[in-house]
Amino acid sequence: MMSPRFSLGVDYGTNAVRALIVDIDSGEPVASASYNYQHGDAGVLCDSKDPTVARQSPRDYVDGFFAAVSSAVSQASRCAEFTPDRVIGIGVDATGSTPLPVDQHGTPLAFRDEFKDDLAAQAWLWKDHSSHAEAQEITDAARQSGQPYLSQCGGAYSSEWYWSKILHCLRTSPRVAAATASWIELADFVPAFITGNQDPATMTRGICAAGHKAMYSEAWGGLPSAEFLDAIEPGLSRFRFKTRAVPSNQMAGRLSTDAAQRAGLPAGIPVAAGALDAHMGAVGSGVAPGTLVKILGTSSCDCMVAPLDDPLPSIPGLCGVVPESILPGMYGLEAGQPAVGDIFNWFVKNLAPPQFAHGADVHAQLTAQAQRLRPGQSGLIALDWNNGNRSILSDPLLTGALIGQTLHTTAADIYRALIESSAFGALTIMDHLERHGVKIDQVITCGGIAEKNPFVMQIYADVCRRPFKASRSAESTALGAAIFGAVCGGAHKSAQQAQSRMTGVKPSCFEPSQESTRVYKRLYAVYRQLHDAFAGINREAPLDSIMKELIAIRNTMCSS
Amino acid sequence: MMSPRFSLGVDYGTNAVRALIVDIDSGEPVASASYNYQHGDAGVLCDSKDPTVARQSPRDYVDGFFAAVSSAVSQASRCAEFTPDRVIGIGVDATGSTPLPVDQHGTPLAFRDEFKDDLAAQAWLWKDHSSHAEAQEITDAARQSGQPYLSQCGGAYSSEWYWSKILHCLRTSPRVAAATASWIELADFVPAFITGNQDPATMTRGICAAGHKAMYSEAWGGLPSAEFLDAIEPGLSRFRFKTRAVPSNQMAGRLSTDAAQRAGLPAGIPVAAGALDAHMGAVGSGVAPGTLVKILGTSSCDCMVAPLDDPLPSIPGLCGVVPESILPGMYGLEAGQPAVGDIFNWFVKNLAPPQFAHGADVHAQLTAQAQRLRPGQSGLIALDWNNGNRSILSDPLLTGALIGQTLHTTAADIYRALIESSAFGALTIMDHLERHGVKIDQVITCGGIAEKNPFVMQIYADVCRRPFKASRSAESTALGAAIFGAVCGGAHKSAQQAQSRMTGVKPSCFEPSQESTRVYKRLYAVYRQLHDAFAGINREAPLDSIMKELIAIRNTMCSS
Repeated sequence: MMSPRFSLGVDYGTNAVRALIVDIDSGEPVASASYNYQHGDAGVLCDSKDPTVARQSPRDYVDGFFAAVSSAVSQASRCAEFTPDRVIGIGVDATGSTPLPVDQHGTPLAFRDEFKDDLAAQAWLWKDHSSHAEAQEITDAARQSGQPYLSQCGGAYSSEWYWSKILHCLRTSPRVAAATASWIELADFVPAFITGNQDPATMTRGICAAGHKAMYSEAWGGLPSAEFLDAIEPGLSRFRFKTRAVPSNQMAGRLSTDAAQRAGLPAGIPVAAGALDAHMGAVGSGVAPGTLVKILGTSSCDCMVAPLDDPLPSIPGLCGVVPESILPGMYGLEAGQPAVGDIFNWFVKNLAPPQFAHGADVHAQLTAQAQRLRPGQSGLIALDWNNGNRSILSDPLLTGALIGQTLHTTAADIYRALIESSAFGALTIMDHLERHGVKIDQVITCGGIAEKNPFVMQIYADVCRRPFKASRSAESTALGAAIFGAVCGGAHKSAQQAQSRMTGVKPSCFEPSQESTRVYKRLYAVYRQLHDAFAGINREAPLDSIMKELIAIRNTMCSS
Repeated sequence: MMSPRFSLGVDYGTNAVRALIVDIDSGEPVASASYNYQHGDAGVLCDSKDPTVARQSPRDYVDGFFAAVSSAVSQASRCAEFTPDRVIGIGVDATGSTPLPVDQHGTPLAFRDEFKDDLAAQAWLWKDHSSHAEAQEITDAARQSGQPYLSQCGGAYSSEWYWSKILHCLRTSPRVAAATASWIELADFVPAFITGNQDPATMTRGICAAGHKAMYSEAWGGLPSAEFLDAIEPGLSRFRFKTRAVPSNQMAGRLSTDAAQRAGLPAGIPVAAGALDAHMGAVGSGVAPGTLVKILGTSSCDCMVAPLDDPLPSIPGLCGVVPESILPGMYGLEAGQPAVGDIFNWFVKNLAPPQFAHGADVHAQLTAQAQRLRPGQSGLIALDWNNGNRSILSDPLLTGALIGQTLHTTAADIYRALIESSAFGALTIMDHLERHGVKIDQVITCGGIAEKNPFVMQIYADVCRRPFKASRSAESTALGAAIFGAVCGGAHKSAQQAQSRMTGVKPSCFEPSQESTRVYKRLYAVYRQLHDAFAGINREAPLDSIMKELIAIRNTMCSS
């Protein structure tokens, strides 16, 4: 029998980075450590004058890698079977589109003294929406160009994405733009940094971020043409990289001597090309044709795959349909909600009254109250757009809404309504996928909310009228990265084969309750009415029935 | 020179009763005392199963009268010029429509052991909305009857009013209904009780409550006909009183020996017929043709008068147009918002986070933060309908709304948006009055918010684009009651003459700021768009511009 071997997955989230070491045969974790970003507000650099700005310090990425990995390695070393030389591969995933400007050596501009306090020189976090005007401009230009550039991303380019951010920087921070040789996605920066394969002209770029966020496709020869980019803004094409973007079953390089030393690992370990966190989470949760993996945390990302041989699904408003972005040999389909847990956290931080703040966990206390309510009893309905809407509207300039307040509305009522609204948003995406021919046989969840919040999961199951299963791993995203580390290290022939060994679902799942489902059907109709009215999808639906219908539902629930 | 003489005004509010003793020559207060109702939640009896229920214990009314009046009398007695026998008249005002069921002796059913815990046997507070279905039914019946019964109340009968409540009780609490000889408005109950003139068949009823709340008019011979009432529900006409309702310059009787003893006053003092608090507040604030008096407290009431010789104004959606309900010889015009301070209090009680709850006054702390914001900076807009809408929609089944939340929205942002929304509601009423030919030359405010909250007053002035003056008296409502006490006591020939001596405005007033006014014009357009859409006034106005416009306004305010 062979000695056990291990793979390392490193997962860059919004507020922290996590390193996970797993057994390549079973996917079982042997060690896990995380590092909270030190800069800004929980790792996010804000601009008090502009709430759309969200940046991060690249210093946190580098410090975080070595802190989390060395901690995981020393933790794993307590296990008799583990030695650092049995780590056969490393995979990396990250939030995105989170591009950062680098110089010709691939070093972040933010590392220079002259730029260290310049927000434009930091990493532009996925949820930065300061480039909404540029996103609209790129969308318009792409539509007018006659080129199929938007065909992979639902027909509208987002302010959260690569070119919007680069264009906004070019126009508003010319000093930063002038010093920038290239913009690198965080998911690509880390593999480049730890392998030393950092030259922006030759370094490995992942197909996942490039395809979903930068309009990269082999169908049109890579990134959009220089003519197209320069027509939007002269000089924009300077940031057009020319290498071929690859899926994560390909290597970005091998762990450099320097990085190996700081991480407590041997040099030379294969490092997989990076990918976006959600896509890695989908792999770690067992995504396959017919399986929707829902990554539920601060935001939500919904991932599916479909064989490349099938006709390319054309789904308006979906964030992305990109060949091999999730699994080699498959289209990757991506949709999502830009704020889920972020909305619950916003409420707790800003609007939870003192009676819920006495104990340690405000969420737990609000949940205890909200759990006592029946669906519809609050008389409230909310739109989950506090951070814009990604799917199915692709519109960052939408905002939240709450309807139905009386003088008796409590904090727990609102907390529950916000949870329900995110579930209605999730159902809107599922309905949209199925209406466009993508059948959903099962839903598997992972992420912080899926792990820790049975109350939210039950509401999702009730609203979406489907069982909600949970990925077996508590760290499915890092597991997905580790799966590609294992593939690059030669332990498995394919990602799919690795999945069959290393992933699974928990034995119990959240089954929809028939009674709740019935009420939520009525409430979902109200949600869609508001959704369609404020989105301009249905400009003729009269809204004067909405408050009455909410009261009617409340009265039914209170009297039955 | 004559010895100074005094009048007593007793004002029944939502949470407390106040007794005010004033000099009849100057209106200057010599003593004031209040009594907080002891039952329920700050005086309001609620039903945890039905948030529309709001009742009060009649015990609080009786106990409150003697506690507040005797305390004011003993306080006044410290003043050398005051003796109890120099009190020449008493006036009473109360919230309304707040009817209570009484037996054939005029004694509240709630005083009997068998009914003391029965919510239906208590007083039905003005803001009780449990009778909304009955209100709709009465509205429909009146419209179909061909009778002009709704001509005094804006074309729709309210769930807050007399007949809706009686009908609801008749149907849902037959035991209470059977034991009830008559329903008496609180404003009539108190004068009846303290004069001993309590027989429901002969006691004095005020024209103010009868005309505005019970469809009473001499034009159709008093209350609606027995046929009309019995067609709605057989037996309803049993509660049709047959006496002639009178304005408050007429006496309800004289202070009884028993009541005099408990109050610390001589028996025999003339007691004026009661009227609704807002109308008395208007009188105490100096209402006259062209002057809108806005009573701003837990709710708002907007009062105007117009000479009886003028053609009867026909204004759809106005709460009431009733001859002599405010001043003898004048039409009384009434409009209002069912929740103003109640919405701010709701927010503070349910949604103010701990950082605002450390000090004594949460309102003051939220105000300090909200004051730093510029108009439009929050990106929010709210509908002030947490307790339904009285004017101009006459619809208790409307609820609150908040639009524009981001992940950066703070409690102070929302607090300010709620204040602004109530100001937009106020402007909606003013615009409506002026569009229907009622010119507003000046606005005078009184009530708790007008007295204590310069921040709210400034926003009202900015939103309504008008100077907001304040009544000189800190207790204008009780002063209005005292004015009618003085008239009934023979000190002045008419209420108008009494007003010229006893009322006035404060020297300083709130002037609109040009810059704020400009922004609020844009925000008001957004408010009206939402208002009209959710009310069904304009079913075709597309709402997809609303969130974008709020962001555009926010961006203007943040960058200028």
